[in-house]
Amino acid sequence: MVNPLSPEVLADPVTLTRALVDIESVSLDEQRIADCVEQVLAEVPWLSTQRFGNTVMARTDLGRTQRVVLAGHLDTVPLADNFPSRVDGNLIYGCGTSDMKSGLAHALHLAVTVDAPRYDVTYLFYEAEEIDSRFNGLRLVAQAHPQWLAADFAVLHEPTYGVVEAGCQGTLRAMVTTAGRRAHSARSWRGVNAIHAAGEVLRRLGDYRPRDVTIDGCHYREGLNAVRINGGVAGNVIPDECAVEVNFRFAPDRDDQQAQAHVHEVFAGFDVEIVDCAGGALPGLDSAPAREFLAAVGEPPVAKLGWTDVARFAALGIPALNFGPGDPNLAHARDEHVEVDKIRQGAEMLRRWLVPA
Amino acid sequence: MVNPLSPEVLADPVTLTRALVDIESVSLDEQRIADCVEQVLAEVPWLSTQRFGNTVMARTDLGRTQRVVLAGHLDTVPLADNFPSRVDGNLIYGCGTSDMKSGLAHALHLAVTVDAPRYDVTYLFYEAEEIDSRFNGLRLVAQAHPQWLAADFAVLHEPTYGVVEAGCQGTLRAMVTTAGRRAHSARSWRGVNAIHAAGEVLRRLGDYRPRDVTIDGCHYREGLNAVRINGGVAGNVIPDECAVEVNFRFAPDRDDQQAQAHVHEVFAGFDVEIVDCAGGALPGLDSAPAREFLAAVGEPPVAKLGWTDVARFAALGIPALNFGPGDPNLAHARDEHVEVDKIRQGAEMLRRWLVPA
Repeated sequence: MVNPLSPEVLADPVTLTRALVDIESVSLDEQRIADCVEQVLAEVPWLSTQRFGNTVMARTDLGRTQRVVLAGHLDTVPLADNFPSRVDGNLIYGCGTSDMKSGLAHALHLAVTVDAPRYDVTYLFYEAEEIDSRFNGLRLVAQAHPQWLAADFAVLHEPTYGVVEAGCQGTLRAMVTTAGRRAHSARSWRGVNAIHAAGEVLRRLGDYRPRDVTIDGCHYREGLNAVRINGGVAGNVIPDECAVEVNFRFAPDRDDQQAQAHVHEVFAGFDVEIVDCAGGALPGLDSAPAREFLAAVGEPPVAKLGWTDVARFAALGIPALNFGPGDPNLAHARDEHVEVDKIRQGAEMLRRWLVPA
Repeated sequence: MVNPLSPEVLADPVTLTRALVDIESVSLDEQRIADCVEQVLAEVPWLSTQRFGNTVMARTDLGRTQRVVLAGHLDTVPLADNFPSRVDGNLIYGCGTSDMKSGLAHALHLAVTVDAPRYDVTYLFYEAEEIDSRFNGLRLVAQAHPQWLAADFAVLHEPTYGVVEAGCQGTLRAMVTTAGRRAHSARSWRGVNAIHAAGEVLRRLGDYRPRDVTIDGCHYREGLNAVRINGGVAGNVIPDECAVEVNFRFAPDRDDQQAQAHVHEVFAGFDVEIVDCAGGALPGLDSAPAREFLAAVGEPPVAKLGWTDVARFAALGIPALNFGPGDPNLAHARDEHVEVDKIRQGAEMLRRWLVPA
């Protein structure tokens, strides 16, 4: 196998972005990209490299007083007639350009070019972020090799369009179900209509006033929404069950338990089953590396509204933020692309941070 | 093929019920039962017999001043571990015992044993009542051979547990849909939630007060119900569409157009699409054969609440009622059965009517 990640490619984060995009790596098919990345890192004299599944970790051990993590996932969503990459002026098009091979390119470029960072650095390239969390490489490493993640601060290269997005909101899904009694619809008074009963669930959702919460200057905006509803047996039967799936996006000042309790409270009197719940992450901008990161970027942080893997760092007690050149609105889109300028600017900011003048 | 409908079997409506149940005839598989019935009728000297698909018609032409139809469908719903028949004391169990081979047995027994009825009689054994109406044998005959149905009065042998159920209610299904705008559920305020919008549809259904209508002493009871609801795109997307399927059961004093207008009025402001609409049938108990039928049965009629093929007769201007020995609550049930006593009583009532003492 010829490794397309040659020294010339690695030297330029824009060229490197295209090269990474052109190594197909849809979730669960990350072996080749992990092989290429591992091979590159293993040859870097100031890094020691380890691998777990298709997740690759490389770290400096320079005896610095602080350690930071730069992390990104290797996988992409499925291709959508957008492979391999193509360039159109300032834009690179292709699957993963925004989410998040341009961010990966930042980390990999810095790993092979910054021999004396101001902190010790752990570079983490992990598998399977875009699918069911049981495959998530960061989750698996946190279970099997938690010492790989030990750090004072972490940067996750999710697409933020070059803005610092701090922490993240939590997300919870619950099934709110109503029960009734079946009957032939020609004799509807003999039954109890579970779909009609769900009207009250929808009324509470319609009346719900979500909170806006400001933490460390970041504005989090909650939301409680029905995302699915299903009920009914047949066209001539009074239905005996209706299920409303709700999604609660909650600010990181609530923990998992508080979020679940809140949903139970909103739907008091109904059968509520929590389907899944992933707590958020507080912005955590107090640490020296975080403050120095913000200084290098030069703009105030905003709240991350979507849930991201920064919450996995937060759960380990490591403050983390999101920073990547891609536009999050283009992630997973057929016309996904990234701006060449944003890649260059981001790489310069990160270098200013790791290697102060 | 040995025809199980031997003269000895035909002579007793209870034995005949079992024999008909034991000829499997799930919808669209009625050829064998139609062959057996046609063969029997073709040999009866006072009947002339015709066939259309798997529908068999036999009629007397005795020059009576009035003509009545006795009609029943040959098909059953799919078997459910309830074939062949078995007897337990006064009960015959098996697929179709109630709906409606015991009723068929009445008609077939009378056809071969009553040589001089007081009216001319048309016996109709038709295919495919239990499935999509495009296959319905009565509908197909009404289109292709409407003269076969010409009569002053009709009895349909649907299960009524030996009670006269007059006319029938109409039934209408409509889709009431709401529209919204998709957005990521982490930024729900950018979208418009179509499921929340459906809350108002459910509220109107919950508040709806259906009419009770009395016609010719028969009490019809309307109902407007959601029978299905579906909405949602994914667990993290604000849904842009939700569809509520409603079923309106309406008394026969409303015609199709009035029923549709009513549903549009109830859901004013929403997108309403009428999926199907089958008008009901007025009780129509004024004709001499109807009055004489009621006298033979000896009990007052009640309203038929479910839609039945009597409406197809009503649409042709022929008053019709439902009368059969089966319990309608057992129709389509795994433990479907019929009472031997009810079969015998019903056969006697019908004979009293067709052959007065």
